[in-house]
Amino acid sequence: MGFAEHYRRHAEFVLHDWLQVERLAERPRFAEHSRETFSAVLDLAQRLARERFAPFNRLADTEEPTFDGERVHLPQPTVEAMRAYAASGLLAAMEDEALGGLQLPCTVAMAANAFISHASVGMGGYAMLTRGNAGLLMAHGTPAQQRVFAANEFAGRWFGTMCLSEPQAGSSLSDITTRAEPDGEGAERDPLGPRHRLRGHKMWISAGEHEITENIVHLVLAKIPGADGRLVPGVRGISLFICPKWLVDDQGALTGERNDVALAGLNHKLGYRGTTNTLLNFGEGRFRPGGKAGAVAYLVGRPGEGLKAMFHMMNEARIGVGLGATMLGYAGYDASLDYARQRPQGRPATPAGKDPTQPQVPIVQHADVRRMLLAQKAYVEGAVALELYCARLVDEQDTGDAGAKAEAGLLLEVLTPIAKSWPSEWCLEANSLAIQVLGGYGYTRDFPVEQHWRDNRLNMIHEGTHGIQALDLLGRKVVMNGGEGLSVLAHRVSQTLARAGQCAPLADDANRLAAALQRLGAVTKAAWSTGVPAEALGNAVPYLQAFGHTVLAWIWLELALTAQAALDGGATGGDADFLRGKLAAKDYFFRHELPKCEPWLQVVAARDATTREVQDAWL
Amino acid sequence: MGFAEHYRRHAEFVLHDWLQVERLAERPRFAEHSRETFSAVLDLAQRLARERFAPFNRLADTEEPTFDGERVHLPQPTVEAMRAYAASGLLAAMEDEALGGLQLPCTVAMAANAFISHASVGMGGYAMLTRGNAGLLMAHGTPAQQRVFAANEFAGRWFGTMCLSEPQAGSSLSDITTRAEPDGEGAERDPLGPRHRLRGHKMWISAGEHEITENIVHLVLAKIPGADGRLVPGVRGISLFICPKWLVDDQGALTGERNDVALAGLNHKLGYRGTTNTLLNFGEGRFRPGGKAGAVAYLVGRPGEGLKAMFHMMNEARIGVGLGATMLGYAGYDASLDYARQRPQGRPATPAGKDPTQPQVPIVQHADVRRMLLAQKAYVEGAVALELYCARLVDEQDTGDAGAKAEAGLLLEVLTPIAKSWPSEWCLEANSLAIQVLGGYGYTRDFPVEQHWRDNRLNMIHEGTHGIQALDLLGRKVVMNGGEGLSVLAHRVSQTLARAGQCAPLADDANRLAAALQRLGAVTKAAWSTGVPAEALGNAVPYLQAFGHTVLAWIWLELALTAQAALDGGATGGDADFLRGKLAAKDYFFRHELPKCEPWLQVVAARDATTREVQDAWL
Repeated sequence: MGFAEHYRRHAEFVLHDWLQVERLAERPRFAEHSRETFSAVLDLAQRLARERFAPFNRLADTEEPTFDGERVHLPQPTVEAMRAYAASGLLAAMEDEALGGLQLPCTVAMAANAFISHASVGMGGYAMLTRGNAGLLMAHGTPAQQRVFAANEFAGRWFGTMCLSEPQAGSSLSDITTRAEPDGEGAERDPLGPRHRLRGHKMWISAGEHEITENIVHLVLAKIPGADGRLVPGVRGISLFICPKWLVDDQGALTGERNDVALAGLNHKLGYRGTTNTLLNFGEGRFRPGGKAGAVAYLVGRPGEGLKAMFHMMNEARIGVGLGATMLGYAGYDASLDYARQRPQGRPATPAGKDPTQPQVPIVQHADVRRMLLAQKAYVEGAVALELYCARLVDEQDTGDAGAKAEAGLLLEVLTPIAKSWPSEWCLEANSLAIQVLGGYGYTRDFPVEQHWRDNRLNMIHEGTHGIQALDLLGRKVVMNGGEGLSVLAHRVSQTLARAGQCAPLADDANRLAAALQRLGAVTKAAWSTGVPAEALGNAVPYLQAFGHTVLAWIWLELALTAQAALDGGATGGDADFLRGKLAAKDYFFRHELPKCEPWLQVVAARDATTREVQDAWL
Repeated sequence: MGFAEHYRRHAEFVLHDWLQVERLAERPRFAEHSRETFSAVLDLAQRLARERFAPFNRLADTEEPTFDGERVHLPQPTVEAMRAYAASGLLAAMEDEALGGLQLPCTVAMAANAFISHASVGMGGYAMLTRGNAGLLMAHGTPAQQRVFAANEFAGRWFGTMCLSEPQAGSSLSDITTRAEPDGEGAERDPLGPRHRLRGHKMWISAGEHEITENIVHLVLAKIPGADGRLVPGVRGISLFICPKWLVDDQGALTGERNDVALAGLNHKLGYRGTTNTLLNFGEGRFRPGGKAGAVAYLVGRPGEGLKAMFHMMNEARIGVGLGATMLGYAGYDASLDYARQRPQGRPATPAGKDPTQPQVPIVQHADVRRMLLAQKAYVEGAVALELYCARLVDEQDTGDAGAKAEAGLLLEVLTPIAKSWPSEWCLEANSLAIQVLGGYGYTRDFPVEQHWRDNRLNMIHEGTHGIQALDLLGRKVVMNGGEGLSVLAHRVSQTLARAGQCAPLADDANRLAAALQRLGAVTKAAWSTGVPAEALGNAVPYLQAFGHTVLAWIWLELALTAQAALDGGATGGDADFLRGKLAAKDYFFRHELPKCEPWLQVVAARDATTREVQDAWL
């Protein structure tokens, strides 16, 4: 099979047979589109990924970015791949045609960009950040900020970053200490926005330094001191700023003056090495724009509303992280399936034992290898469907009618922590299984699976750790508005159950999922029954895990309904095999995975105090 | 705390409070020993690990061994550390004093060697292989082979290897094609054993080439062709040979002649880089000992009994692998516990929310961080206890009375697959949790936890993969002799249950474990109820996982009984904290882990056919 053909076929099934994305072309925003234009975009991304990214993924790992004290050096293929990507127009896939965008649905744009992650999640990291940065400016920036910064980012002339964390403030953003002070006389009337000077340190900044593009647009969270010169404690004091590496005029032309943002160092990572990850110093005086120290930066939105603006973009960013994790899993599945079909080893166990005079069989014939492949399939194909389902909700939120918008918004609130966390955990497990299928070979750097596993380990950490996702889900999302988000999800699941109940081969699974859903609801109530946050949230991660597995069982039942309908419709040959594969993966998920929920939920339901009560001195 | 002090204290608790190893000194073989000599050996190993290994573990990772076409280059600290280790006498820790050994119990020797794995499992790999090699010769070699080869290995002058796998035969040893042909006239009367010439390729040979020692003793599985010149198919045709890198005379003096064993290449691994891993060519004519091609090798034991001899050593080798995996987990636990106690971040959730004006707290105070630490503690301390329990069984097998020997042998058969597989899976998970505790820092190479995780991934692969361990357990060990091994284990567990039933704080846990044990027995029967191997073994890995978790629950109940007795005996202060930690880890294991068995067992009990019946074309 050609590059990522397995994913292509699955994505087409998800997009068309299940999500029916071509119906989006009936909406005014997507009226220029059709199934054909959607396919053309997938073709484009698949080709770019195959030609520009896939051949250099290992190089991007072995030739880690270096910093000589002045400049960062990246492998040239990374630079060229990202420039080709920028030139393709995919950075602006979802933007207005008037802005040079392709005005595509999020669902199709995500499905297309997934090819890049399949080929090299590390090399492609620059794109995700740039889209997130520019998208935020489209939602919260002034027209001038959009014209100068966002437009240049969508065009691929400049790339963007998100500067949230600091060395002393990772998950705890309320503790950031980067200061933003008004930049003297007339600063508030700067055409690019109220001008400030930033001083502080930002840590874990991906794509924070490189020379792929002529400029880098940093979006920076910082605090404006009060009249007493002190920073406001907590998240309410946080504002958002645009801080370009090179200063620009109000038409977006480079002035040639370097801003006071300096690379303090590169982080040396376990994986994901194609994307630089940096510690940046703002305003330390390394450069002196306008003759003085301090990084020139322009306020976005109102003071004190920085975190709110940042979180606006979080849903899409987190779906993007989840999809990246998913595609790493998919790449490992492809590699291990290919290996298992080629590699002869051993013979089937028969009641009469094994006959060593017979030739060896390909290892795909061994039950345990099939178990490891089917588990990977269930994880990665299920995760693709989950991510594209969430992307479809983004489209609904953007282009649906009022009722549909609201419902999609509620569902996204509840599903985003799952879309981010579930593939980060289970597609990482898929990567481990891929290594195991290859055995000793999988442990060597002669095969790609060990890199997938290393690259994927980041995804449980960045964009909100697993623990943060769990607190977000159980502490906020399932209880907000009296549990409205959870109710909407339960309603959607029950619609699926009603359809599956009418489909004989799936009726048992419908009963299993109904029980799981009911149990999840009861446990959510039990967790909060005392109203004490520490008791409810002490086991938030097991709750997140069970919630995720229940959601994925629902996704798999949806896919199985789609596949069963196509089989009942008379699919034959290779098509029938493809559809039976969906049913087998669904079987695997319902029999081997869904039952794992109960052990996770038991501790949540009991508000088990084991981890809460253990004392530091006992560890 | 000093280097590995946390492990030291736990090991002392396991060795003395639980296993009462000092009572072994009552036996004639260990009569020269006492608690003091045991402590002295632990001191020695701890110091060597701290001074010679720990400071260079990262270097052994970043300066991977290289091959210039002629010679292999290792970092000098690895060479010096292994020479210091060899000089310490620890290689011969268990051997007879007459042979220069320390004549220590296996339990104590393993507990001591664990320090080396804690400091650098990769640098220490040479020792485990050398001990296994020489131990095999002590069991199966002639007096001359023992005097010439084993004695030089125990003395640390030569190191050893185990050459089983071939490029086309990994898990399937029946397919090896290395040929062994008698080396002409008088070959059968060679004082070092019937002399043959080997021709073939051996893959994944750890420590297969280096210059730490003046010679390398390869133990090689090969097949002697029949009269028709053909190799006997299957494992019955396999014989075992000694094949030194440099030829020696019958007194063990180097003759200066190079044997025809050549390094074809080094494998470039994900981790575990301190130990070279090689592809070796035997008899390709690179060297011409005695004027002709072919690697000179001496038969060990009888023709066709090579695999039996190799498996003789497998129990100890697999316990060694399990202990290595365990100590990697322990090293990660130490690093993440230390970090969690130092790192301020965030504030506790209270019913009134969080007060950002308060100082941040160390992350060890957050429930989810405590969950991740307690899980690691339960995995790694439980695994230490399991491995040392197995080592204690080896001592019983070696020095117990006839009945005790037999019972220990049966238990070892059943427990060895668990001792090998369980830490390989769950202490790897511990390593992942350690990364998660450190967050972004854990993903960088500035901290040791990412290396632990990479190093540990090997352990589910080498010395028999997870899948092979599972087949060994469910296909052989629990059914052999009418299930005698499982009965003996069940009897031991029921003795624990009887004691725990009398101890009020542990009575509930006793009931839970009793139910788990009963379920495990019933599922074992259900798996085999049709007598069809493919049906029983299709879900062998989930069975292995459930079996392992049940065994570990038993181990934790044993440790809890020991801790509770000490608390009831009036322990106070730091001692009481230490003991309460054991009870908390037991609580964690019974509440969060033991319930995971049921989802695994369901598919085994149902002889679930999902993975067996999925067709290649559906994947």
